[in-house]
Amino acid sequence: MNKTIILKSRPKGIPTLDNFDFKEEEKPDPNEGEVLLKTKYVSVDPYLRGRMRDEESYIEPFEIDKPIQSGIVAEVVESKNDSFKKGDYVSGMLEWKEFQTSNGKQLQKVDETKAPLSAYQGVLGLTGLTAYLGLLNIGEPKEGETVLVSGASGAVGSIVGQIAKIKGCKAVGIAGSDEKLTTMKEKFGFDEGINYKTTSDMKQAIKEACPNGVDVYFDNVGGEILDATLANINRHGRVINCGAISLYNKKEQPTGPRLETTIVKKSIKMQGFIVRDFGEKFEEAIAQLGKWLEEDKLTYSETIVEGFDNIPKAFIDLFEGKNEGKMIVKVS
Amino acid sequence: MNKTIILKSRPKGIPTLDNFDFKEEEKPDPNEGEVLLKTKYVSVDPYLRGRMRDEESYIEPFEIDKPIQSGIVAEVVESKNDSFKKGDYVSGMLEWKEFQTSNGKQLQKVDETKAPLSAYQGVLGLTGLTAYLGLLNIGEPKEGETVLVSGASGAVGSIVGQIAKIKGCKAVGIAGSDEKLTTMKEKFGFDEGINYKTTSDMKQAIKEACPNGVDVYFDNVGGEILDATLANINRHGRVINCGAISLYNKKEQPTGPRLETTIVKKSIKMQGFIVRDFGEKFEEAIAQLGKWLEEDKLTYSETIVEGFDNIPKAFIDLFEGKNEGKMIVKVS
Repeated sequence: MNKTIILKSRPKGIPTLDNFDFKEEEKPDPNEGEVLLKTKYVSVDPYLRGRMRDEESYIEPFEIDKPIQSGIVAEVVESKNDSFKKGDYVSGMLEWKEFQTSNGKQLQKVDETKAPLSAYQGVLGLTGLTAYLGLLNIGEPKEGETVLVSGASGAVGSIVGQIAKIKGCKAVGIAGSDEKLTTMKEKFGFDEGINYKTTSDMKQAIKEACPNGVDVYFDNVGGEILDATLANINRHGRVINCGAISLYNKKEQPTGPRLETTIVKKSIKMQGFIVRDFGEKFEEAIAQLGKWLEEDKLTYSETIVEGFDNIPKAFIDLFEGKNEGKMIVKVS
Repeated sequence: MNKTIILKSRPKGIPTLDNFDFKEEEKPDPNEGEVLLKTKYVSVDPYLRGRMRDEESYIEPFEIDKPIQSGIVAEVVESKNDSFKKGDYVSGMLEWKEFQTSNGKQLQKVDETKAPLSAYQGVLGLTGLTAYLGLLNIGEPKEGETVLVSGASGAVGSIVGQIAKIKGCKAVGIAGSDEKLTTMKEKFGFDEGINYKTTSDMKQAIKEACPNGVDVYFDNVGGEILDATLANINRHGRVINCGAISLYNKKEQPTGPRLETTIVKKSIKMQGFIVRDFGEKFEEAIAQLGKWLEEDKLTYSETIVEGFDNIPKAFIDLFEGKNEGKMIVKVS
């Protein structure tokens, strides 16, 4: 039999285990042109929370009673498709199932001799692409500028900080514990760190950590930290709106100070994106990230949780910041 | 004697006549290298309200008891500078004085045989540059897209709508009276108009006027109209934050719904600017605007108020929307 995880109900506020359900189904047989995939690693990411909401977005919402999808690295265990052979490893947007079939069209082969399989969901996957393409294309950091990053010890944020350093910028990170700040500085090379949980005045803390002001803000969290940053942003500052995890679980429409006067007064750019917006640059980006990895200019953290059954809990734990770096579930 | 207008006190809320004072001084004599200028036309603009506030911005605030500055077209009545001769007309950022001297460094000569002098403060001046450079550089409108403009019957907005039409877009304008809507459509060629003063549900009104959604929003007003637009914006929509006149006179920090979830979810770009940001494109822009004027592809409105003494009132009237198109004071 084949275990799957479906969306049982749409979360209100922070997702709970009740929102998910496990189902058993027959293990599928691949048709001609298909492969049978065995799930190895499942990526859980904050943006999945958005797809659990029934509203228009860049991608259709998950349906009730249907399997959740996310980035998955799988092994080809049977192939009726000439492009793949048994034993190949692939990554793609796949369903939370132990086994599934695919026509292969949306799969990328990954090479486990070049990097550990889990890295293809992190620094060499959508996570790395998000950090690299968002920072460089929207943020356009210049040598000597100050780059502030929220969610800085997370999967994307920790890579953003390292790329900022490679580009000759000062990197300042915001995270939620002193241990995370230590890792940020010692492992990822951030120059300064701010613990937002123990800081009562974020505006002042950012001012102290960024005495020349903020030129680029890579925002994973939104909300009050964005406001505090805008109070310290330089003329022509750029905000990369990558995520707004602080708002995802709010039940009411959140409010805050209006941003447009600051945007006008300081010629600020704020821009959201999904990594697919820069699809034509994926190849170049992955090549560059791979090169930096090889040269030891880039490193990464993973929090690896074991077991298919723990996928929902690992996802929920993201919202309490229990991960350091990329949160991944090892299934087999 | 020479009349001047100084800032007597910083406005709280909407400026009043009490915030200004008239002073008389000796008519100045030009030194070697200087010209004596006689003020012809004074431009009054909403952004001057920002300079009356004592806070950091892209330009220093006006000082109490010192003359206000704005765009002025003047006649050279005496010249001790080889670059200018008596009878030349010039434009520049000058003081609210009947006469003043200048070293000529920041002055541009204007040609009254090519366009009426007042046009150099409107369509061939900072107003036209703001419309042209903001719309094309930040908005990047593509043929067939929908461009929404607030303050659409104002100096900048009316030019934005016409350029949108030249570029093959649908132009929808928001203004505060039915007469303005009629002018917008009949004179400036907007396809649709929304009277925000008589519309109870702006979100719905924008939806009806823009059935394919909003691709580009040229925002002169900020506030709730921005919120209503973001509710109707398309994926990859672009917001040109040119002004926020609805917020300039607020005494408290205005609040509203948080925008970052929409920005993230729809890959929106919001960008503020001042026209100086695109300084290197001024020449090309003025040439293009002049060509469109000659070809009758572009037209403009002016509200011309007579008399030096009426400058403060003309400025205040901007905030009640009493102008149609560019508000200009004819001094001599």
